[in-house]
Amino acid sequence: MNHMRRLSNEKDGKKIKNQTEMIKSDRLLTMKTGYYDTDELITALATPWGESALAVIRTSGQGCIETVSACFSHSKKLTDAAGGTLVHDFFVDPGTREPIDEVIAAVYLAPSGYTGQDSVEIFCHGSLPGIQRILEALHKAGFRNARPGEFTMRAFMNGKFDLTGAEAVQEIVSAKSRKAQALALGRLSGNLFHEIDTVKHALVTILSKIEVQLDYAEDDIEESIEIPASEVRELERKISELAATYSTGRLYSEGARIVLAGRTNSGKSSLFNLFLKEDRSIVSDIHGTTRDYIESWITIRGIPVKLFDTAGYRESQDSIEEEGIRRSEKVAEAADLILYLIDGTFGITEENRSDMKQLSGETEVILIWNKSDIAVDDPPRDTIPVSAVKGAGFEILEQEICNKLLGASVSQDSEIMIDSLRQKELLDRAAESLSEAVLSLEGNVPLDVIAPEIGDAIDALGELTGEITSADILDKVFSGFCVGK
Amino acid sequence: MNHMRRLSNEKDGKKIKNQTEMIKSDRLLTMKTGYYDTDELITALATPWGESALAVIRTSGQGCIETVSACFSHSKKLTDAAGGTLVHDFFVDPGTREPIDEVIAAVYLAPSGYTGQDSVEIFCHGSLPGIQRILEALHKAGFRNARPGEFTMRAFMNGKFDLTGAEAVQEIVSAKSRKAQALALGRLSGNLFHEIDTVKHALVTILSKIEVQLDYAEDDIEESIEIPASEVRELERKISELAATYSTGRLYSEGARIVLAGRTNSGKSSLFNLFLKEDRSIVSDIHGTTRDYIESWITIRGIPVKLFDTAGYRESQDSIEEEGIRRSEKVAEAADLILYLIDGTFGITEENRSDMKQLSGETEVILIWNKSDIAVDDPPRDTIPVSAVKGAGFEILEQEICNKLLGASVSQDSEIMIDSLRQKELLDRAAESLSEAVLSLEGNVPLDVIAPEIGDAIDALGELTGEITSADILDKVFSGFCVGK
Repeated sequence: MNHMRRLSNEKDGKKIKNQTEMIKSDRLLTMKTGYYDTDELITALATPWGESALAVIRTSGQGCIETVSACFSHSKKLTDAAGGTLVHDFFVDPGTREPIDEVIAAVYLAPSGYTGQDSVEIFCHGSLPGIQRILEALHKAGFRNARPGEFTMRAFMNGKFDLTGAEAVQEIVSAKSRKAQALALGRLSGNLFHEIDTVKHALVTILSKIEVQLDYAEDDIEESIEIPASEVRELERKISELAATYSTGRLYSEGARIVLAGRTNSGKSSLFNLFLKEDRSIVSDIHGTTRDYIESWITIRGIPVKLFDTAGYRESQDSIEEEGIRRSEKVAEAADLILYLIDGTFGITEENRSDMKQLSGETEVILIWNKSDIAVDDPPRDTIPVSAVKGAGFEILEQEICNKLLGASVSQDSEIMIDSLRQKELLDRAAESLSEAVLSLEGNVPLDVIAPEIGDAIDALGELTGEITSADILDKVFSGFCVGK
Repeated sequence: MNHMRRLSNEKDGKKIKNQTEMIKSDRLLTMKTGYYDTDELITALATPWGESALAVIRTSGQGCIETVSACFSHSKKLTDAAGGTLVHDFFVDPGTREPIDEVIAAVYLAPSGYTGQDSVEIFCHGSLPGIQRILEALHKAGFRNARPGEFTMRAFMNGKFDLTGAEAVQEIVSAKSRKAQALALGRLSGNLFHEIDTVKHALVTILSKIEVQLDYAEDDIEESIEIPASEVRELERKISELAATYSTGRLYSEGARIVLAGRTNSGKSSLFNLFLKEDRSIVSDIHGTTRDYIESWITIRGIPVKLFDTAGYRESQDSIEEEGIRRSEKVAEAADLILYLIDGTFGITEENRSDMKQLSGETEVILIWNKSDIAVDDPPRDTIPVSAVKGAGFEILEQEICNKLLGASVSQDSEIMIDSLRQKELLDRAAESLSEAVLSLEGNVPLDVIAPEIGDAIDALGELTGEITSADILDKVFSGFCVGK
């Protein structure tokens, strides 16, 4: 079922009257035909699989509360509960009535709650066998396991947010830095949707004018309405700017790989530890945080960075060449940036020169003049003086790393960024159609040629926010979600 | 602060009037003097640290709701909320008011809820930077990180359960099998407490009679009240039986280590996979379950078992001896049970005989006649015929493993079991004091010698349920908990 050509079809004689009406029918059609059947009762563990104080098991669907109540020691407590309230009870096997856990249930009545359907969230002990027993009991009662993103998809179906908001839910969960999380929260709050929707409404107004013109043309009226190319060009610019945030948005969401390289004793491990220490203060208090000291996720000014210390390889080898360099190179190959350390107490050696020649490939490199506090010389040009042990020069290094990673990107201070390839491609498509429309308008091409160009841009933006969509697209969007979301 | 001698002191002329009254004052004293200050505002992540659909952040303490509300976009929504209800809002930085996440808050008003104090549970997205930001905002607002078990300790302080119930909370969380989880749930529901409390009350009645007798003795009344030794003996038997459940209870909670041993191609890996397959059906649907195929937790009839396949060692060696056996032995050393596989298609070889001699140490061994379906011979005496590939003989093997692990334990069908060393030691102390009291009663020893013996048993049981306790003991009990519980 593909709705993408909807607007083009409507051009054939019909006027655009009520977008919302059509959107609704689209969504309903998808509900019936898609991979996801929104009538079924679904359940999933919404918290990570591990021993902990609490775990949350989500349920949703029509008849959800009644069905969950079969697993409650005092079923009526649950079925009588008002929406938005908590119920304390024993969770039991619906067949044997054997108690399984002492739980709290949060009751949501449609259209409230996350999915907009009746739903119950069960807060149980974070016990692995306990969670298993509860899920099995729910299956017995009539629930099936939710597919990835199925709760969010139902929320989208019920109009809780547009498709960019739905995508933002998973983007929040998988955010690797505060900045990425904050950007995704903005999208969840609808800032991207409103930006796109504003452009789309302007385009719909322009298209309506064209359609009216085409209709009246049949009646042979004299005056033609002016469609200014500059107005379309301005909308095209807005869309292109949004598309251009993709590389930065993706950097904030997916992060960069940075490799530390250099000769033995150049101070790679000290620098590695310095990066970790600066970042670590944030998480040291949180229980269960573990780090692997050969590679570690850190954050540099909001950019998540997977930092690789090649120390492990170095130790077993006398020289960075031979086996050692082969293995370090493998890590460096996939790097976005290499930090090459020079031992300032020795100056630039022949070996350094040879390494630097090796490294001058496609990957960006920052040369670090380490041990700057006890160096033999002033830092050479193009190097950044740092004392990894004392922390001197660290802020300048961080700034330089940001500059290299963000490049000449104009969008790094933007409040609204995209990090989804799907969104990027649709914005590009919209911008391209608008570019064509601008050329057509400037070239006085007949309006019935321009109309589908603007129509296609509207379609692309509608698909972006999920107003025009197909089951296939939804499946693709939601299948990348985690279970329980 | 040690209250343990309380009852002995009371013997000096005073009668036992109101246990509850004294218990209360004990708890209050602990609240003021202990390591844990129940007045402070505490917070902790209650779900595992990992990306997921949802995370739960707990808060508790006096003024909790007011303080959390400083982090809410619409503070009044939270402060006006009735107990047992859910509030939907944006969580913001209390200083900058920058939105951090969209959350649901569960509001509990004292004396309801887990801790019995005012508390708010915050359900946020399972985003790692998001969780960090929320915890930091709560710290800014006035919360400190909760210590392990601190929420449960407050629940205990507020009389939500006795100390065996409090311990059961953590036992549920760390349960490695359904049976262990179910046993712990029974203890949380108070079945162990009631068992002990019944015995204790009977002892208090007996002690009261003795004290009356001693008081009246001063007044030179003629008739002495009979204290039957058989009654005390019966109580001692109950306590001893409970203490005897410890080895089984511990087996169910901590599990056993079983090592697969045998020559190359005897079928160890097939048997390992068979064990996993039988157990795996339970968890296959749960997202995120990972298993290490060299060692793996499985469950055999409710007993959690860490199963070791020594295959990894075997592969690199021609013979089980030399380096191979040294490493396998290291694993086998700490094993509770060794499953030694004989390849039935070869029969018992010289090498098998040599291995079996090596293995006949302190660890229990089950000899398995593998490939029984295509074996050259009937299974020898003392072996269990199994076809690891076809699954034949598997149930008999499981039964035999249970028999070996549970031994001659009489308590394996008991509904009430203990798995805490603290409880075991206190039950032993109570049983010992009662044994002495029985001997004293039978030997017509003066009552003022018997009274402290019974008094000590009462003290031990009171300490077990937490009615008599000290800050030191509580610290010890709760420090083994996970954070957020």
